[in-house]
Order: sequence, then C-alpha cells, then structure tokens
Amino acid sequence: MDYATESLRLHREWKGKLEAVPKISVGNKESLSLAYTPGVAQPCLEIQKSPSESYNLTGRGNTVAVVTDGTAVLGLGDIGPEAAMPVMEGKCVLFKAFGGIDAVPLCIRSKDPEEIVKTVSLLAGSFGGINLEDISSPRCFEIERKLKEACDIPIFHDDQHGTAVVTLAALFNALELTGRTLNDSLRTVILGAGAAGIAIARLLKAAGLEDIILCDRRGAVCKSRNDLNAEKATAAEATNPFNIRGTLSEVMKGADVFIGVSGPDLVKPEFVRSMAKDPILFPMSNPIPEIMPDPAYAAGAAVVGTGRSDFANQINNVLAFPGIFRGTFDVRAREITQDMMLSAAGAIAGQIKKGELSRDNIIPTPFDTNVHKAVAAAVAKAGTREG
Amino acid sequence: MDYATESLRLHREWKGKLEAVPKISVGNKESLSLAYTPGVAQPCLEIQKSPSESYNLTGRGNTVAVVTDGTAVLGLGDIGPEAAMPVMEGKCVLFKAFGGIDAVPLCIRSKDPEEIVKTVSLLAGSFGGINLEDISSPRCFEIERKLKEACDIPIFHDDQHGTAVVTLAALFNALELTGRTLNDSLRTVILGAGAAGIAIARLLKAAGLEDIILCDRRGAVCKSRNDLNAEKATAAEATNPFNIRGTLSEVMKGADVFIGVSGPDLVKPEFVRSMAKDPILFPMSNPIPEIMPDPAYAAGAAVVGTGRSDFANQINNVLAFPGIFRGTFDVRAREITQDMMLSAAGAIAGQIKKGELSRDNIIPTPFDTNVHKAVAAAVAKAGTREG
Repeated sequence: MDYATESLRLHREWKGKLEAVPKISVGNKESLSLAYTPGVAQPCLEIQKSPSESYNLTGRGNTVAVVTDGTAVLGLGDIGPEAAMPVMEGKCVLFKAFGGIDAVPLCIRSKDPEEIVKTVSLLAGSFGGINLEDISSPRCFEIERKLKEACDIPIFHDDQHGTAVVTLAALFNALELTGRTLNDSLRTVILGAGAAGIAIARLLKAAGLEDIILCDRRGAVCKSRNDLNAEKATAAEATNPFNIRGTLSEVMKGADVFIGVSGPDLVKPEFVRSMAKDPILFPMSNPIPEIMPDPAYAAGAAVVGTGRSDFANQINNVLAFPGIFRGTFDVRAREITQDMMLSAAGAIAGQIKKGELSRDNIIPTPFDTNVHKAVAAAVAKAGTREG
Repeated sequence: MDYATESLRLHREWKGKLEAVPKISVGNKESLSLAYTPGVAQPCLEIQKSPSESYNLTGRGNTVAVVTDGTAVLGLGDIGPEAAMPVMEGKCVLFKAFGGIDAVPLCIRSKDPEEIVKTVSLLAGSFGGINLEDISSPRCFEIERKLKEACDIPIFHDDQHGTAVVTLAALFNALELTGRTLNDSLRTVILGAGAAGIAIARLLKAAGLEDIILCDRRGAVCKSRNDLNAEKATAAEATNPFNIRGTLSEVMKGADVFIGVSGPDLVKPEFVRSMAKDPILFPMSNPIPEIMPDPAYAAGAAVVGTGRSDFANQINNVLAFPGIFRGTFDVRAREITQDMMLSAAGAIAGQIKKGELSRDNIIPTPFDTNVHKAVAAAVAKAGTREG
C-alpha cells in the first residue's frame, strides 16, 4: 500500500483523529445542574481547600499533555508546530488505545527553551503529566531538565526515555538469545549522540553495562574531544571508559552490540564483520536503517532489530509509553525514575517466553494488550517502591 | 435535591467529565501505519507547505481551548486554576453536547496578564479558537484585547460576550411582549460594571439603544467621576449620554429596563415601583438575584428574567456560546464580530414564536437543539458576510 497517499486521503476525511467526548449527559435541567452550575461549585470548593483533590474530582490525573515545538518531527526535521499536529494527534490516539490515558496535543509556537518551559509549567495544573515529543537536541535536554524543576508532575521526553526503554528491552532478549549476560565486559556502540542516543547510553549504563561508546558524525564521543556540546561532554564523562577515539568503523571492531539512532546506510557490512562473535545490531534509523537486516545477517549478525514495522523485531516506543504513563498515573508517582524505566524494559522483554525467543522474535507486538498491562504493573510497583 | 452534595459525590465517581477518544482504530499494523508512522509524514508535509491545511488535516478547526486563570470562578471568586477545572470541564462538555465542538480545558497558573497572553498565544496553532472564562475584571479586558492582537484565531470571552448576547436576546422578546420597540428613547440601567456589565452595555448600544446607564457600587458610571478604572472610564464615554449621576435608586427612576450582573438583593421593590410603566427586569446575579421574581412582579414588573434554572426565563450563556463557535468554525471566521453576536441574539430570540411569547416564556431552553442550530446558522451567515 502507498501509505503516504492513503494516509493523506484519510487525514482529509477524518479532520482530526481525536474527539473530546463527555462521559456524562447534560440533556436536562437536573443533569446540567449537577455537571455544571450550581452543583459544580462544591467540587471547586473542595479543590480550593486541598488542591490535590483535583486528582479525585477532575480528569487531571488521567490526562497527559503531548507537547512539541515541531523542531524534530519524525525524520522530517523542523517543520513547525502546526505541521507537527498529525503526529501529536496520532500519539494521543496511542495513549488512549494502549494506555487508557486521555491525551491532549499541544504544539507550541516558539523554539525558545525558556518560553517553552514557561508555557508548559503554567499549564501543569491542568494535567497529570507531560510527554515531550519531537523537540530537537540538545534543546530537549534543557527543556526537560528545567520542566522537572518547575513542575510538580511527571515530565517524560519520549524520544529519549521511551526509545531507551524499548531498546533495553530488546537488548535483554537479544543477549539471552545469544547466550550472553548483561555485564560490564560487553562493548556497545551507539551511533547518534542526540536525544535518543544519549538517553539509551544512560539507561544501558543504569542497567549494568559499562563499556558504552557513543559516536556522532565525527566518531567516538570521548573526553579528549573539544568539539562537544554540553550534553555530549557530560555523556563523554559517563561513557567510553577506555577513552577510545576513532571513526565508527574503528570503534565497531570487536563490539558486541551496535545501536543506531542516526541516519540511513551508515553501517557497512565490513563493519559488522569486524564485530565480536554473534553481534547484536539494532539499526533503528527510520525509515531507512543504518544497515538493512539482510546484509547485516549476511555479514554475520546474530540478531537484528529495526524501527520498521515491515521487518521482524520492531523496536517501537509504543511498547513503552502507554504502560509507563498508565503505571505512573495509577500510583500517582511524582516523577518517572530510572528504576521505573528499568522495570518497564524488563516487563516488555518478559512478554517473550523463553521457548518463543528466536532471531525473529525478541520483542512483542504493541497490539498485544498484555504488554501494556505488564509495563503498567511493573512501573506502578517501582513507583510505589520509590514512594 | 441537594445539588452540592450530589454533585460532589458524582464528581468523585466520574474523575473527570471528558474523555479524549480516538475517532479511528489503531488495532493492527496497517491502521497504525496510516494514522501514525510512516503514513502520517505526508499530512505533516502538506501542512508544512501550507499551514492553513492544518484546518483540513487535523482537528484544529473544530477544537476550542477553554482557558481560565481561576480568578473569577462562578460566584466563588479567585479560587485558583486547579479549583476552576470542574467548571472548565463542564463548559467543555457543553461545547460538545450543544455545539459538536471538541474543547480542551486549560487552567493557567498565573495571574499576570502578560504571562497569560504569552501562554495562550504560543498555543494558538493547536486550536481553532479560544474561549476565555472566569477571568477577573478588569484584567479580562486587557487579556482579551492583547490576545486578539497576538493570535490569528477567534478569541471570545464568554463572561462578556456570551452574557451580552443572551441578555440582548431576552431583551428583544421582552420589548416585543411589552409593546415597545428597540429605540433610543428607552432607558436601560445596568448594575455591575465588570466584564458582563460593560459587554452588555456595548452590545445593547450596537443594537440601537442609546440611553444606557452603567452603575457600580458607587452609583452611575459617568464622565464626571474620577474614581473609574480605565475600562469603566472608556464605558463612561460611550454610555450615559445625559451624564446622569446618582445612586442606583436614583437612576432607576423612570428607567424602562433593569439588568443586574452584580450581587444579591441590591434592588428594593420601591426601586421597581419608581421605574417606567411595564418595566423589564433581568436581575441575573447567581445564585441570588438582585431581586427575586415574586417581589419584582408584586412591585409592577412586566417581565422578569434571571440566571436561575428554577425560575422562568433563564438567561443562560449556554444558549449562545456553542452555536456561536459552531457557526464561526463552520465558515472559518478569523474573529467573532459584533455583527455575528447581534445575529446570534436575534436567532435566540427568534426561537420563541410570537404566539408563544408570554411573561414566562421570553427565552428558549438550551435543551432544544434547534436553538444552537439557529445560532450557528445566523453566526455563519454574518461571518461570511464580513468575509
């Protein structure tokens, strides 16, 4: 199917993918008097007395704002806030379909981190959480950090943390499949040192991997480079423990795991051949991966996962964010911690039973509702543990 | 029924009165690929080329933001943004139930007009219009004016204009009932010179009434007073053509029409007795009117309308705003003009057939869907006329 043409036709027909539907009727005087004036004054007064009652008396606690500035939409780049809306509406549909969460798309007409932080923080009383989306790097890091300081609700940048959670889930099972354990002697190369790459490196490290090398266009991110932005410089401190320098082809030699969140066709078959035995490859650039599965397997890959739905092992954020927010909202956690994200990754991986694990089956499909339930339960448990 | 207790119980059960419901299914790979990646890239690119395509390819053109800062909620005053949410959710329910419009409640954590204007204007690309709600006077005037300058979508402060439209509709029929015509010799006294009072004065003047006297706590608003805020001073220029001074009881002498948007029990029966023959009284203070209907009638009133649902002639904003936005959205008008508001008032009044007009029936009920359709059609026609 020509998805582009058909999707455009459907979007023109739909005129929006979401509706704001009343849960209640206001079809007569009595129902109107209960849902609206004069009855509504009483819940208002209860919340005035105790603002946290807004979680019990309004939809706030089940509502997430999906926020973008339109600067890094899909692989399309900076297309502007209005043009980002079809993606944000789609994301909101996924929140409801897979997490039972009411989501509101907000596209902000500013690229200034301060303005974005101010705007979102002034709206935090209307929502139970904020999902940041498709905001360009490194601005996304500053915006997320400042929002966490300014807001009393969970802030989650899905392009960072959702991607990291699902990647780690796939890695858990790929290691299992290739008879490895997650330990500090495994070497992982991550190509792409933007939002996703840096977040993946952080989460993998939190999971117990030590030897992680981030690469950008200029090669390995290491402490001796002086061309790094603040985020990459911080990442250089926490990764690449042997301070290895070099191009991608150089650092991939002997590596066990390759993770790509960069661009199309950047990995050559000979790079794969130079890796350790039974290498694991997750070339997740969309729509064209860093290397296609067939040539990767031909060059010796043990298991390959991509971002695409037309290949096996789609490493897809939709496996993570609905359940992560569901679990967070269920226990009213004030933030989404690293421990909650590690738990989510474990829950996703755990959906593939040991007997079913294979080269073409290391990660579940998002259409299996059990995944989202398992993620929500694991995140809720971790959220409760942390208080 | 004890609305307060029952409403609180129901709000606790509902946990929110709205849901964000997908119009479409994403239950398999194909549908997900059309509603989300990769298909969704195509509508994004179309909007990037031509931002107005966002009205055809997203829900923006049918979506209104219901915005408050929580400073003037119902009769409760400044209860804060979180506590305002039950009212805003209720308003959103009414938008959908009576206008088919998707509405999003946004409660802003700031009382600074500049911050509020900035916040809302940065979100204008996500919505087809903004409904301002329960923002205290005179800040509401500044906020509305600056938003109109800053945004390319309609801005409507319902406490001003919705109230004015419905009041004018009731007045049309009350004049008809009492054998008067709307002309410049009629004297109207408006008690309350806040958002609603000033907006009513403006719309009545636009409709053809000249002799309008606004009153506040200190009496008639007139050019010779030096204690007026900027909004009242401007109103003093446009109203009270004979520069009449005096207390409420003094200026009500000989008046044909009294409109109250102030507080409880401020009009005494003797004030009514001092009015012109067959006086029209709309004491709309909620929940307790400026004078109750029974004593008003006993003192000679020809027709009385209040804001309450338990008396005849409820002058209720819900008669206006759903149809006004429906009509505005249907023709994609860039603003809601005075002409569109006058048309809306005429459409509401027109719902009462001449033979059915009586002291207890000057205004229709909002549960009659024909009202909203008639308002929408009239507003759309006026909106088209103005281009």
